[in-house]
Amino acid sequence: MKTERIYLIEGRKDVWLDTYIWNDSQQLLAGKTRPAVIVLPGGGYLQAGDNEGEPTALKFASLGYHTFVLHYSTYGLGFDEFFGLFAAMDGTSEQTAEFLRKYPPKPETMWPLPMVDVGRAFLKIREHAEEWLVDKERIALCGFSAGAHNAAMYCANWNHSRLKEFLHCSGEDLKPAALILSYMVSDYGLMNEFRSKVPPAIGEFFDISNQIFTGQITPDKHTVQTVSPARNVTEEMPPAFLWACADDTLVPVQNTLRMAQALADHKIPFEVHIFEQGAHGIGLGTQASAGMSNQVFEDAGKWSDLAGKWLEKRFSLPL
Amino acid sequence: MKTERIYLIEGRKDVWLDTYIWNDSQQLLAGKTRPAVIVLPGGGYLQAGDNEGEPTALKFASLGYHTFVLHYSTYGLGFDEFFGLFAAMDGTSEQTAEFLRKYPPKPETMWPLPMVDVGRAFLKIREHAEEWLVDKERIALCGFSAGAHNAAMYCANWNHSRLKEFLHCSGEDLKPAALILSYMVSDYGLMNEFRSKVPPAIGEFFDISNQIFTGQITPDKHTVQTVSPARNVTEEMPPAFLWACADDTLVPVQNTLRMAQALADHKIPFEVHIFEQGAHGIGLGTQASAGMSNQVFEDAGKWSDLAGKWLEKRFSLPL
Repeated sequence: MKTERIYLIEGRKDVWLDTYIWNDSQQLLAGKTRPAVIVLPGGGYLQAGDNEGEPTALKFASLGYHTFVLHYSTYGLGFDEFFGLFAAMDGTSEQTAEFLRKYPPKPETMWPLPMVDVGRAFLKIREHAEEWLVDKERIALCGFSAGAHNAAMYCANWNHSRLKEFLHCSGEDLKPAALILSYMVSDYGLMNEFRSKVPPAIGEFFDISNQIFTGQITPDKHTVQTVSPARNVTEEMPPAFLWACADDTLVPVQNTLRMAQALADHKIPFEVHIFEQGAHGIGLGTQASAGMSNQVFEDAGKWSDLAGKWLEKRFSLPL
Repeated sequence: MKTERIYLIEGRKDVWLDTYIWNDSQQLLAGKTRPAVIVLPGGGYLQAGDNEGEPTALKFASLGYHTFVLHYSTYGLGFDEFFGLFAAMDGTSEQTAEFLRKYPPKPETMWPLPMVDVGRAFLKIREHAEEWLVDKERIALCGFSAGAHNAAMYCANWNHSRLKEFLHCSGEDLKPAALILSYMVSDYGLMNEFRSKVPPAIGEFFDISNQIFTGQITPDKHTVQTVSPARNVTEEMPPAFLWACADDTLVPVQNTLRMAQALADHKIPFEVHIFEQGAHGIGLGTQASAGMSNQVFEDAGKWSDLAGKWLEKRFSLPL
């Protein structure tokens, strides 16, 4: 296995691709190519979580695929700052105002730039496809939470003329082949509706994430339309696998159901699994992705095997 | 993940450890250690097979463990030579004699030196335990075919005074915590018995493997006693997980059953799974370890998940 960190934007140390490339062997595929999976961790566009990165990359690597973890543009909060933010929120409007002052949006990490980074990852992988023996026609995205939002936005926009012009490439260079969405954000209108129903401290988190990603604490109608994957499904989206937990208290499960509705409406092939019990941000839901024992779930922890079976139908190796 | 090839014997390029070391993260184990699994591929001590190495390392890595592939001393046949040997065998005694002349034993790769290499791997891993965050008390061996034979011989001998003296270390430095055995060779007496019952070409393979490993085409009584794990089980052996396929035409399944008998006789905890259908040398039995589609088996391909569950009981992560 070849592991390497590749920075994707000159002069920036916060956007990178970690590679997990299988060794070629005469006893395995003997020079033939493997499909690939790009993992996008979540973190509300404030950071990208390690617990959803390497564990997921290793899971899909163990199924025979080259894998990558994409650290797309986020606000770049460190571990202590990110979890400190959660701990400090108390739902008072003064506190919120202070946080919002403390975290003004940074132009270089706002929408649509995190999505553009997904395009950079596709270009980088296709650039190295011969060296790494990657099947250029079969590259999947696997995102978590905000990373799932980013992956889904990318799949709705990969063939958009502005993206292709910005990256100086063709749609074929950017085309994704499959999409795996874990406890996703699919609709900012839904998130706006929920703002008043969730505990105030969670509402503060929404406000900050909205502000640093869209520039608006409560995204307006136009922004909601633009940045909601469920409102932008096209016939060009790849087949999708979705899962979430019904008791998710951070991103309501309705987001996953609404995305499934939109996929069904557009006749995009998809599979959905909603587990009764779990929590937001559990990654694989097994000991491999857990930092504490309350992040391991017997049932929800089966999603990655279900996703592997689903993916294998499209990503069978060339045996 | 840190991947690296570490050579274990000065001046030799044929004995190495490939590492698959998890990155530490505040969101995962935050400085705590992980158990480790050392994978030993098979190949009749003539070579060590790639199809049982990296795929297995990635499977156990995906469960949260640091993993290693140990390329222990073998005769060192290349891919073409090894599979060419199989293809050329026709079961005539002249052919056998010619092969036996062509492959005289090499002292540096004969018994017990492949087993000594397992000790070197334990020492190397324990030497780096702080740097890599390895739990020194929980290091397992996972061997295939001849690699399973080697792993089991090691587990029968890890506390032997001659091994400790040769490696200048204590028994604690060499102690294994668990043992996973895939389609193993457990008893050379059994293999001698089968010599006349198997197709002549397979018999030739036994002869060559025996000669290069023990120096004898048909191991004598003393050698059979010495190099058969099933005849050397001690109370100091770690718990074991065994699996094989009932229709294995190269190493009879009786080897696995006999090892289980010996473990039961010595009250060593163990678990056994015999699948009706499969083949020798299938590794994980999934697409990830296959070079051809006839190496994928729906049922036998479940062994590594069963082994993972079994191992997790002993190798739970410190969450």
